[in-house]
Amino acid sequence: MKRIADSTVRRLSIYLRYLEELTARHIATTSSDELAKHSGTTPAQVRKDLSFFGSFGKRGLGYSVAELSGRIREILGLGREWRVVIIGAGKIGSALSTYRGFNQRGFTIAAVYDADPQKIGRRWDGHVVRDVAELERDAVADAPDIAVLAIPADNVQDEVDRIVRAGIKAILNFAPARLDVPPGVTLKTVNMAMELEGLSFALTNRD
Amino acid sequence: MKRIADSTVRRLSIYLRYLEELTARHIATTSSDELAKHSGTTPAQVRKDLSFFGSFGKRGLGYSVAELSGRIREILGLGREWRVVIIGAGKIGSALSTYRGFNQRGFTIAAVYDADPQKIGRRWDGHVVRDVAELERDAVADAPDIAVLAIPADNVQDEVDRIVRAGIKAILNFAPARLDVPPGVTLKTVNMAMELEGLSFALTNRD
Repeated sequence: MKRIADSTVRRLSIYLRYLEELTARHIATTSSDELAKHSGTTPAQVRKDLSFFGSFGKRGLGYSVAELSGRIREILGLGREWRVVIIGAGKIGSALSTYRGFNQRGFTIAAVYDADPQKIGRRWDGHVVRDVAELERDAVADAPDIAVLAIPADNVQDEVDRIVRAGIKAILNFAPARLDVPPGVTLKTVNMAMELEGLSFALTNRD
Repeated sequence: MKRIADSTVRRLSIYLRYLEELTARHIATTSSDELAKHSGTTPAQVRKDLSFFGSFGKRGLGYSVAELSGRIREILGLGREWRVVIIGAGKIGSALSTYRGFNQRGFTIAAVYDADPQKIGRRWDGHVVRDVAELERDAVADAPDIAVLAIPADNVQDEVDRIVRAGIKAILNFAPARLDVPPGVTLKTVNMAMELEGLSFALTNRD
């Protein structure tokens, strides 16, 4: 398969959402025009995105909703279970774990970790909080796929290094810090502080 | 001032974080090399970013940490209070309101809204949850600057339209939906579902 840009992957996620809406409404076919309209892009872009994955749809008949959503799910790797560990037993991790679609899309919480002795051993959303110092040892048996890093910004790189040593290849980071990962590990950062500052900037510098 | 790209604004946020670290460590000057190293960019990019805002730093002496952080705060509009309303009295809003730096950077929660009769009137992180139907009326007196949209994906556009009618010019959206805003309103979306799907994609399509 050709190298697919991040922006394409994001649009596939958006198409999938609309296709799921159609499924819920028992609508069997759709068009690139419809998909474009509900995804904030152009019909040409939709056709180009979908053409990466071979031929879909029949001229004049449009796309089969079932076939297309199945194929996108497969491309996005949503056909299997992803074992997620949460580092930081706080509100962000909790918000994420109760996020609608988190379980639906195959993400399950394997374990929750914290460094705070006050939190270790306590129950948190149905899990007993583990000591983060045990992540590497636990990972041998648990084989988690994804680590969610939801701790304050101090020493986040140390935790990233620990996650990498534990053999976890994907990290979703909520800490407002610049982090380094070795090749082969994918890091995505959700930086709420930066998004707020982007809004503050936009409000300040309006015409 | 020239039109500044979103990517530049994001880097300014990152530079500011490092400058605040230096301030805490009582370090008075820094260089474009240092800033680049801690921000994952190049010294040339740092100099280019800072040159937008006039002349900083003296050749051979580097940048004054106090002057540079003051100037970036001013550019980002962090010198004043931003009144934030949260739509959706759930975990995401709560995580955001307790986010370190939220208050520090001048963001204060003016009010919290929900549509759920079970939540309206209850206390939530020190606020009494208001009926979202009253947002437009309240906004006349409260004049909020930013709305945080932290509700499930159904009918999010209706809530966006309501926020726009209330005269709010900046929206931070956590719902996994494509939304339209009129010109003059800035919308940023933090899509945790999409970030997770991006990781799932990366894990599935590794070499």
